[in-house]
Amino acid sequence: MLTYNFENISIPLYQYVYEKIKEDILNGNLSPDTKLPSKRTFAKNNGISTVTVQNAYDQLISEGYIYTVPRVGYFAADCSVLSNPKSEERVSLNITVPRQSKNDLLSLSDNRINSDYFPFSIWAKISRRVISEETNALMTLSPANGKLELREAIAEHLRSFRGMLVDPKQIIIGAGTEYLYSLLIQLLGNDKIYSIEDPGYSKIAKIYSMHQASYKYVGLDKNGISMKDLKESGGDIIHISPNHHFPTGITMPVKRRYEVLSWANEKNSRYIIEDDYDSEFRISGKPLPTLFSIDESEKVIYMNTFSKSLTPTIRVSYMVLPVHLANLYYERLSFYACTVSNFEQLILASFISEGYFEKHINRMRLLYTRKRKALLEMIKKSSLYKKCEIMESESGLHFLLKVQTNLSDTELTDKLSQIGLYADFLSSYYHEKEKREHLMIINYSNLDMDTLASIFESIAKILPDT
Amino acid sequence: MLTYNFENISIPLYQYVYEKIKEDILNGNLSPDTKLPSKRTFAKNNGISTVTVQNAYDQLISEGYIYTVPRVGYFAADCSVLSNPKSEERVSLNITVPRQSKNDLLSLSDNRINSDYFPFSIWAKISRRVISEETNALMTLSPANGKLELREAIAEHLRSFRGMLVDPKQIIIGAGTEYLYSLLIQLLGNDKIYSIEDPGYSKIAKIYSMHQASYKYVGLDKNGISMKDLKESGGDIIHISPNHHFPTGITMPVKRRYEVLSWANEKNSRYIIEDDYDSEFRISGKPLPTLFSIDESEKVIYMNTFSKSLTPTIRVSYMVLPVHLANLYYERLSFYACTVSNFEQLILASFISEGYFEKHINRMRLLYTRKRKALLEMIKKSSLYKKCEIMESESGLHFLLKVQTNLSDTELTDKLSQIGLYADFLSSYYHEKEKREHLMIINYSNLDMDTLASIFESIAKILPDT
Repeated sequence: MLTYNFENISIPLYQYVYEKIKEDILNGNLSPDTKLPSKRTFAKNNGISTVTVQNAYDQLISEGYIYTVPRVGYFAADCSVLSNPKSEERVSLNITVPRQSKNDLLSLSDNRINSDYFPFSIWAKISRRVISEETNALMTLSPANGKLELREAIAEHLRSFRGMLVDPKQIIIGAGTEYLYSLLIQLLGNDKIYSIEDPGYSKIAKIYSMHQASYKYVGLDKNGISMKDLKESGGDIIHISPNHHFPTGITMPVKRRYEVLSWANEKNSRYIIEDDYDSEFRISGKPLPTLFSIDESEKVIYMNTFSKSLTPTIRVSYMVLPVHLANLYYERLSFYACTVSNFEQLILASFISEGYFEKHINRMRLLYTRKRKALLEMIKKSSLYKKCEIMESESGLHFLLKVQTNLSDTELTDKLSQIGLYADFLSSYYHEKEKREHLMIINYSNLDMDTLASIFESIAKILPDT
Repeated sequence: MLTYNFENISIPLYQYVYEKIKEDILNGNLSPDTKLPSKRTFAKNNGISTVTVQNAYDQLISEGYIYTVPRVGYFAADCSVLSNPKSEERVSLNITVPRQSKNDLLSLSDNRINSDYFPFSIWAKISRRVISEETNALMTLSPANGKLELREAIAEHLRSFRGMLVDPKQIIIGAGTEYLYSLLIQLLGNDKIYSIEDPGYSKIAKIYSMHQASYKYVGLDKNGISMKDLKESGGDIIHISPNHHFPTGITMPVKRRYEVLSWANEKNSRYIIEDDYDSEFRISGKPLPTLFSIDESEKVIYMNTFSKSLTPTIRVSYMVLPVHLANLYYERLSFYACTVSNFEQLILASFISEGYFEKHINRMRLLYTRKRKALLEMIKKSSLYKKCEIMESESGLHFLLKVQTNLSDTELTDKLSQIGLYADFLSSYYHEKEKREHLMIINYSNLDMDTLASIFESIAKILPDT
């Protein structure tokens, strides 16, 4: 018969009863299917009220420690395997996390933008205002493709900055370009063949691969994607960065753009994904018109990100879908909740529509232009200059440095690491890792100018004379 | 011969030359492949410097309007199809956006949590501090699975609140549970069969379907997922909410939990996804131990979200992977950037680790408990009570109301809409839409108590006597 000691109890009585019975079940004192006393008997034996027993039994039932058979009574459940977790202070399991940094070397190819100039105070100001004034908008669920305020701000930005005429309903906001790719694969189908620029970002192939979609590599010529390769690839969807290809820096001329468009027009299943990732940082002249804006047949999906142009600390990208794909999106994919929080969407919407984004971009472009000029002059003045060739286009935040040496890229990488440096080589962006050697990618957005002069001298020193 | 009028020019000279030549190419004055004058000739004819012409030509080349043949000269490119977009003020295209609201009816099943009590001032305070003090952490790229600060805060929360012992390396942060599902399908494979609770959320089937993964429905009995159905389904991975199933409200007893675990242990490919979405809002007693914490064979993937427990305005969810799956994640999926911004991760990390999250949860639980009690009493006092039965478990933010009527659920829905009301019926959550009728889902988290009494009277009036 269940009787317990009820002296000096600091927790509610019912909880004490619950704990004691649970203990008896877990340590085997009450074996599975043992009948428990009725509530009244239990209460009487222990000198407590029936309500207390009722509450304890209810809790035990809802947690599955006991069960009830109507008009028969209560029974202990089979909890023989139940054990409580040990209470260690901190858990550390055998999990291998890949290293993020390249062994603490200074990277000359670091593609993060310089965030020193990010207007934190303005961001904070808008963020305060959003919290205090826009409580309603904050609390209203975002449509699947993003808050209207943000999509309108982006549409206006695209109109004034890129000459693109876009209905806010065509814009899909997402937490990063990679996420939007996943949506696109779901929209266009993983039974399609996706063509990828070679050289290019290796991530894109990984994303297709993780979604079980086939992909083919397509080579480049001096005007960007090779039309011959593209046609031979048999691909349906081509991903390109016509404004500024990474890592070659190629800007696709208008003629090639039209060739790619007419390739897409040959088949219904064909589309072009236009990744316009750093169009804001064209150094001189106006940015080129986008493929999206010269497309008359709903073949171009435009993509861009604020993580690149503004700060990587926010995670907001967007794509602009042609009308029929936008309709397909609403029909098939709008059940997904938007992946960007209302907070961030509303702050960014104000940041753009009140002109801060444009101001920031203009300021950064000026800074980068000056930095690029100073950097190129610095290289020209250094001992490295007679051992290298600068290959640059007037856009984006990187250029290529062709080093004259007999060393392989791997040997060069070793030599650089000995003097504390790291650089990406163009060769590593090729799918087949061909022998296109000695092309160092210099991404200057995040480089510290003060230390650079000595760095170029050091590089010159490690290069044997050819 | 190209000669232009250089009077009254307000833009840089090179840009003017660029614009004029571009104009001539676009309007056909310079037909494709026409040779342009050499830089020197052009400069001489127009009385400007060669450098100016050089700059203009460079810009035209980089934008593809002209091309150069080495040692021969410059030629107009074929731009015949290029047209500038018309500059309308606002673009509105033929895109059909699905309606979000249910025709402005008052929903009795609205599953949004009440956000009136969200501690905006504390959130704003932490947000100011993060912006001013944690600039470095804001600017450092987040690891793929999220900032360590946030994962540590979550691990500690899980330890104290759920008795779960978790290594922060097991935690994967993502922008919403749906996004994490997509990662899981990529991790476990879309060649697996996913089993889904029936009734349950229809979204889960949609996500599997959009990822080309097979899924099977598995029925429930009074203790949750039916073991017989589960075994017969042939599924590899089962998605369940053992703590509080939606919409039935079933809490899975300990015995069934062990049965599901031992089912998973029968095959290597089997896993359990434990969706613990509203465990914070258990009305009485402590929440049940999670499946994750009683799993000794690395079979349970635990998921939860802050969008539900805190506010839908932030978009942060997380999953806890068993060790071998965490390792697989780092190997295969950590190339993806984290989908939650640093801002939001750091604010939430402080919000949790400084105790505000627990305070908020406790406060909300108290409020909801009172509201639930008041609501149940209100129903009991209303004329509706003699025509209905309340079916409730002691957890979560909803319960079921079984209405006694001969009307079908569709007829009931019509009658309700005539008096401005909307309610989900349990029947609509069944895959096969069987005749389990008259079970209204009452989600009270966001209901306004002041108007409810009259609403129950109105419902009673539209029900014919049976």
